[in-house]
Amino acid sequence: MENTYAVIMAGGVGSRFWPASTSQSPKQLLDLTGSGKTMIAATVERLAPHIPPKRVIVVTGRITQKAVQDALPHVPKENILAEPMGRNTAPCIGWAAVHVRHRCKNGVMAVMPSDHLVANKDAFHASARLAISAAQKGSLVTFGVRPNAPETGFGYIETGDEVSLGVNQAIRFVEKPNLEKAKEYLKAGNFMWNSGMFFFTAEKILSEIEKQMPDLKAGLDKIEGALQSGNESAVLEQVFPTLPSESIDYGIMENAGGILCVPVDFGWSDLGSWAAAFELSTKDGNNNAISADAVAIDSKKCLVRAPKDKLVALVGVEDLVIVDTGTALLICKKDQDQHVKKVVETLKAKGRTDLL
Amino acid sequence: MENTYAVIMAGGVGSRFWPASTSQSPKQLLDLTGSGKTMIAATVERLAPHIPPKRVIVVTGRITQKAVQDALPHVPKENILAEPMGRNTAPCIGWAAVHVRHRCKNGVMAVMPSDHLVANKDAFHASARLAISAAQKGSLVTFGVRPNAPETGFGYIETGDEVSLGVNQAIRFVEKPNLEKAKEYLKAGNFMWNSGMFFFTAEKILSEIEKQMPDLKAGLDKIEGALQSGNESAVLEQVFPTLPSESIDYGIMENAGGILCVPVDFGWSDLGSWAAAFELSTKDGNNNAISADAVAIDSKKCLVRAPKDKLVALVGVEDLVIVDTGTALLICKKDQDQHVKKVVETLKAKGRTDLL
Repeated sequence: MENTYAVIMAGGVGSRFWPASTSQSPKQLLDLTGSGKTMIAATVERLAPHIPPKRVIVVTGRITQKAVQDALPHVPKENILAEPMGRNTAPCIGWAAVHVRHRCKNGVMAVMPSDHLVANKDAFHASARLAISAAQKGSLVTFGVRPNAPETGFGYIETGDEVSLGVNQAIRFVEKPNLEKAKEYLKAGNFMWNSGMFFFTAEKILSEIEKQMPDLKAGLDKIEGALQSGNESAVLEQVFPTLPSESIDYGIMENAGGILCVPVDFGWSDLGSWAAAFELSTKDGNNNAISADAVAIDSKKCLVRAPKDKLVALVGVEDLVIVDTGTALLICKKDQDQHVKKVVETLKAKGRTDLL
Repeated sequence: MENTYAVIMAGGVGSRFWPASTSQSPKQLLDLTGSGKTMIAATVERLAPHIPPKRVIVVTGRITQKAVQDALPHVPKENILAEPMGRNTAPCIGWAAVHVRHRCKNGVMAVMPSDHLVANKDAFHASARLAISAAQKGSLVTFGVRPNAPETGFGYIETGDEVSLGVNQAIRFVEKPNLEKAKEYLKAGNFMWNSGMFFFTAEKILSEIEKQMPDLKAGLDKIEGALQSGNESAVLEQVFPTLPSESIDYGIMENAGGILCVPVDFGWSDLGSWAAAFELSTKDGNNNAISADAVAIDSKKCLVRAPKDKLVALVGVEDLVIVDTGTALLICKKDQDQHVKKVVETLKAKGRTDLL
C-alpha cells in the first residue's frame, strides 16, 4: 500500500452541532463524544497503521487551515491544502487527485470525510484493503455501509453481483428515500448507505472528471501545470473560484460505469446530530454523558458539554442536550435536535455571524 | 409618622436561588423578576412615600455591606448596620431597636425583610398606617397575610376578635402545618400567614427582650452604652458573637401577651423559589420569562437568566429554570426547584465554597 494516499475532506461546518460547531471551530475539530480527541485526529489515527501521516492529504478551508494544522501535528504542513472557498466535493477531490498524481504517478486515493466515526478499526482496515486492491486495478470503488435501520437521512447504493470476495458491483446510487422506501431497502438486503468514502487512482478519477465534468478538468489542468512549475498558489487563487460547485456523487459517481462497492460493517456513524453524539458518548451511572464539572440531582439521559471551569447543575431533568461554549448556551430536548439548524438560521437572519 | 423608622433585615442568602444567590450576592441584591431593581431597592422604594431613606435602617452582614450601600444610594451609609456575624432575627431586631431609640426616644419600628414582594403598594400603606398607629399605643403588632392557598411553607397566626377597625388580637403563632392542617386553616378564615413583618416601639421590643431574653438584653445594653459613648464598633465586635442566636418569632413573639395582628391582602410574596420568580416575572408570547439575548424554538414556560452578552437558545423545551451566572449553570425542572438546595449542599460537601 506504499502508493496509497488518504484524502481527508475537512471543509464542512456542521451547523447541527451549534453552538459547539462554528466556522472557526467546525465539527471535525470537535471532540463530540468525549473521547479526548478531535474527530479529524481520530480519523488520521485510525488510518495510521496502513497510511502514515506523511501520505495523508487534508483539504480544508482557509479559515480553519491553522486549526487543522494544530490538530494534526504529525501531518506535514504542506499536506494540508486550503481551498480559497468551498466548491463542494468534486473540485475538492479533483484538486487532491492533482496533488496525489504529482507525488506518485500511480497513486491510489482513499477519500474520506474528517468527521465520521468507526467503532471497529480492524474491520475498517480489512474493508479498506479490499477497496484499495480493487482501486489499484483501475476501478472506482465505494464503501457501502450495511444498514441496520431504515434511515431516511442517507443516500443508498444498490449493489449487484459479487465480482470478487467482498466486492460487489454498484448498480446505482439512489437519493435519500422516504421511510417506506427505506424499509424496502433494508428488507432487500442489497442496498447500502452511501458513506462518502471512495477509493480510486488519481489517474482514474481525473479521467472520469475529464469525461463527465470537462470544465472542472480544464481548471484542474491549470492548477496542475502551476503546481509543476512551483506557482500553484497564485493560479489557485484565480482558478478555484471558477470551478463548478458540484458533489462527487452527483457530478461523477451517479453516472460513471463499472463502479464497485465494498459492503462494510465496522460500526460506522456520520455522527449527524447531538442525539447521535449522546448515543456514542461514555455515560455515567445515571446514563448522563457529561464533560464538565457537574452536580446531577434526579437527572438522566442528558448530554452536557461546557467549559472545564464551569459548574453545571442538573435538577429533575432528562433527555436534554446542554451545550455551553461561554458565548452561547443551547438547551435542547434530545429528540428535537434536528431543529438546532433553525437556531442557526435565526441567528444568520439576525446578523449574529459572531456566533456562527 | 415622623417618628417611624423602617428596619430592613438583609442578612440572608437564599440558597434556593443558587446559582444567582451566593454569599457575595444574596437574594435581596438580585432582581429575580426582571423588574429592573434589586429586591432591597424595591423594598426601600415602596416605603419611601411614608418612611424616607434617612429613616431606613438596614441590618446586613459584613460581606454584603458594601453591596447594600451601592444598591441603596439614597440611604445614608451610617444607617446600614453590618453584623459581625449572623445571629438570627432576635439580636438583629434588638440591635436595630437600640439604634432607633438612640435617635428617637419614642421611635416606632416597622420591621420587614428585604427580599419580599408587594403587588399593591396602596393597600400596603393603608395596612402599615393601621399597624403603626397600634404600635404607637404600645403594642407588639404583626402583619398577617390572608391566605389564598393551603400553604405548608409558612407559619400561621391565629387571629381573634377585632379590637379596632382592621386590627385583631393575635391568639397564637403556629408552626408550619401539614397539608391537612393548612386546609383547615384556610377554611377557618381566621388563620393568617406569618409574613415576618412587625411593628412596635423600640422601647416596647426592648422591654419584651428584657423579660423573655435577659441575656440578649444584657448584651444589647453594653452595645447601647458604647453607642452613646461613640465606641460602638469595638464593643460590637466583642459582644455580638456572645448574643443568643434566636429568631424573634420563637424568642419573643410566640410567648408575648397582647400581640395584635393586622390581616393584610396586598399581593404579598416571599418569592421563595425559582418557580415563584417565574410566576411573578414578565412573560413573552410563548409564556417564557427570559432576561437574556435568546432564540426560542418550540419552547414555553421557561425562566431564563443569563449574562447580557450570552446568547441562549432553547429548542423543544418547557417548564425549565435556566440560570447561567458565568461560573455556574443551573438547569432545573420548574416543579423540582425545591431540590436546588441539594445542589448547594453537594457543593458545600465538596468544598466548592467559591460557588456558594
